[in-house]
Amino acid sequence: MANSITNGVRQSRLFTKTRKEAPTDEVSRSAELLIRGGFINKEMAGVYDYLPLGMRVIAKIEDIIREEMNMIGGQEISMSSLQRQELWQKHFNQDRWDDSKVDIWFKTKLKDGSEKGLAFTHEEPISNMMEQFVSSYRDLPFSVYQFQTKFRNETRAKSGIMRTREFVMKDLYSFSKNEKEHLVFYEKAKQAYVNIFKRVGIGHVTYLTFASGGVFSKFSHEFQTVTPSGEDTIYINKNDNIAINKEVFTDDVKKDLNLKGDFKEEKSVEVGNIFTLGTKFSEPHLVFEDENGAKSPVFMGSYGIGPARLMGTIVEVLSDDKGIIWPESVAPFAVHLLLLGDDKSVAKEAEEVYESLLKNNIEVLFDDRSGVTAGEKFADSDLLGIPLRAVVSLRSIKEGGIEIKKRGEAKGKIVSLDELLKIIKPKVK
Amino acid sequence: MANSITNGVRQSRLFTKTRKEAPTDEVSRSAELLIRGGFINKEMAGVYDYLPLGMRVIAKIEDIIREEMNMIGGQEISMSSLQRQELWQKHFNQDRWDDSKVDIWFKTKLKDGSEKGLAFTHEEPISNMMEQFVSSYRDLPFSVYQFQTKFRNETRAKSGIMRTREFVMKDLYSFSKNEKEHLVFYEKAKQAYVNIFKRVGIGHVTYLTFASGGVFSKFSHEFQTVTPSGEDTIYINKNDNIAINKEVFTDDVKKDLNLKGDFKEEKSVEVGNIFTLGTKFSEPHLVFEDENGAKSPVFMGSYGIGPARLMGTIVEVLSDDKGIIWPESVAPFAVHLLLLGDDKSVAKEAEEVYESLLKNNIEVLFDDRSGVTAGEKFADSDLLGIPLRAVVSLRSIKEGGIEIKKRGEAKGKIVSLDELLKIIKPKVK
Repeated sequence: MANSITNGVRQSRLFTKTRKEAPTDEVSRSAELLIRGGFINKEMAGVYDYLPLGMRVIAKIEDIIREEMNMIGGQEISMSSLQRQELWQKHFNQDRWDDSKVDIWFKTKLKDGSEKGLAFTHEEPISNMMEQFVSSYRDLPFSVYQFQTKFRNETRAKSGIMRTREFVMKDLYSFSKNEKEHLVFYEKAKQAYVNIFKRVGIGHVTYLTFASGGVFSKFSHEFQTVTPSGEDTIYINKNDNIAINKEVFTDDVKKDLNLKGDFKEEKSVEVGNIFTLGTKFSEPHLVFEDENGAKSPVFMGSYGIGPARLMGTIVEVLSDDKGIIWPESVAPFAVHLLLLGDDKSVAKEAEEVYESLLKNNIEVLFDDRSGVTAGEKFADSDLLGIPLRAVVSLRSIKEGGIEIKKRGEAKGKIVSLDELLKIIKPKVK
Repeated sequence: MANSITNGVRQSRLFTKTRKEAPTDEVSRSAELLIRGGFINKEMAGVYDYLPLGMRVIAKIEDIIREEMNMIGGQEISMSSLQRQELWQKHFNQDRWDDSKVDIWFKTKLKDGSEKGLAFTHEEPISNMMEQFVSSYRDLPFSVYQFQTKFRNETRAKSGIMRTREFVMKDLYSFSKNEKEHLVFYEKAKQAYVNIFKRVGIGHVTYLTFASGGVFSKFSHEFQTVTPSGEDTIYINKNDNIAINKEVFTDDVKKDLNLKGDFKEEKSVEVGNIFTLGTKFSEPHLVFEDENGAKSPVFMGSYGIGPARLMGTIVEVLSDDKGIIWPESVAPFAVHLLLLGDDKSVAKEAEEVYESLLKNNIEVLFDDRSGVTAGEKFADSDLLGIPLRAVVSLRSIKEGGIEIKKRGEAKGKIVSLDELLKIIKPKVK
């Protein structure tokens, strides 16, 4: 939706308001800031609503992910949440329908009494669906992805939007003829993930991390972002800029990966994972005929990122005691324009700046509220964390224009409107 | 997502394939065509997956709706599916939690045994959430909307994507100080709906229809699209281009609405509805203080459209015995480029046309498949229903270029590449 969102929003008309306090049961710093800023609303533990400011951030994160998925050839789909029991039970070796094997199912019932599940992932339905599209080696390889709502019946949900019972996940699934072909795509997907974390502004603290594998691979790869609030523990190898998850951090593994030198222990959040599934979900039903007419099961991989968890992680990493500091790439707006005071000529000037920014295709939140003090407006601006603050006041006009200040910086400066328009990048698309 | 979708897709790489037959239990004509074309996949009765071609159509429909909702000031949010019992039970007069009052709930349970519902609509949670944002007359009026997955436990689901157990709905909610202010917005929303149905290509068969109202309004308004497969019956007044739903079609109502002349009975699909809720969901908890400090409940309205039902309706209305005939505004691509034969110089020519179209920001599906006959390609092209077919073959080159034909028309003509580029509109954004 990033491109059908409106460029300009007047804060006097935005229905959300900032809050001094988050709900008392909210222990996550990112959720606290996001709730106080009006980005999200807590519906119950582990279940959140996304409000206009939050929607803009999520849309930008999703568009970055979508671009990278399209770049590696991913085809976008959207599968259902409601799932048939039979599919998860009979057609596969895993029997992941069984609550004793998978303890995060939400189950529900149709009118006819038949039990349905709410998908926590989609390997079973997607490999089942692909039976109708894959028959020959000519149909492979390919990959599909979706931004789709997952339901997970987490016993505890206390990390804000970092671990929730309902969340949109970007899950991509790859289908290849064999392991060799799979690994070519796997490397591309790995690079796409590196690009994504870099583009959303947390590349500098995000590490490719070796984690436990499955039947078909010794390790899987996670992307872990260092933050004290993380639920995971990783050991970062400084020489190679690579990490190992605590769950597999042994001398044997270090040797195996040929990683030398020091390791530093850090708390971290898993912001993405990529996984070689092999034929675990394709055997025996999803098969193809090779050039010689012989049948083989399709070789699969899966690749996940949760946009909301990413939003939460960005806030954990990029904030200070006053509020959020959004990177430009995912900020809800490029500019936070503040009108100070009740002087009519100042208001007129601010309106002109607002209109000029919009004409130049720049996304701007305009704090045009009356009856709000300068101090309150500054505090709100710091909390919301838009990258550039532009103040129009009697003083700024007297000093020659608009006072601008980057969110992370302490001191501002006065610029003219023309200078301001040169400084800010218009929305790309 | 319409603007981060890729302009060009090679049919040889598209994982979906057309099918000769739809599932035998599929009785809906639109679902049959959409399944055969690979737009959607049936997961179970009333539950569908959206595949790449279908995603493109849905994205365009959603973007048209979003633009119209933004135009009337709607602010986009996204609320959760999981719902707390207490909220629907205690805080409101309706007790819509009760399965005997609302018979389409899907219910599920948390680990702690507490029952949760999957939202079939959002009046209760949204009016509850707004308590924290609305306190004064200065906070009103405003409106919010979402594209959000609804779950409805329909007893029967046999109309393809027209009535499903899980579907994305655009639901907008308006919040006003009083009925007068509400009606001003209500008229704007009505006009936005008229615009939407016109823009997606079914304006000519869609009627503003009077249906049964509630406590706060004698009638509600539906938008009904005439099609033999519709579940509803309406009576169209030819003089005024307005219809009355069978459920309220009496002499008294005709008189009441001052509608004279003939009425024609038609089967129809409800593609949208707008509803005056009044204070039904705000009283007593969602109140505001007026200029004099007196407290009044907020006056609400709700406004719904299901993008998938709209897609199904478009197909019901715009198809022939060969397949779908998409309107340009929602077509998955602007051009279906067909390469015929195995001649290398023809293939080279077709590749050049493909690249030129992409360079000109035109969305094109390129049927570059080898080993598929011309007849099969033509049949697939008719089934998929892309507005313009452009054929590159030995014959077309001999005759001076590319043979183009509109999907609805019988005869094509030869044009040069330059002429082709002039004929087709590039993607707007």
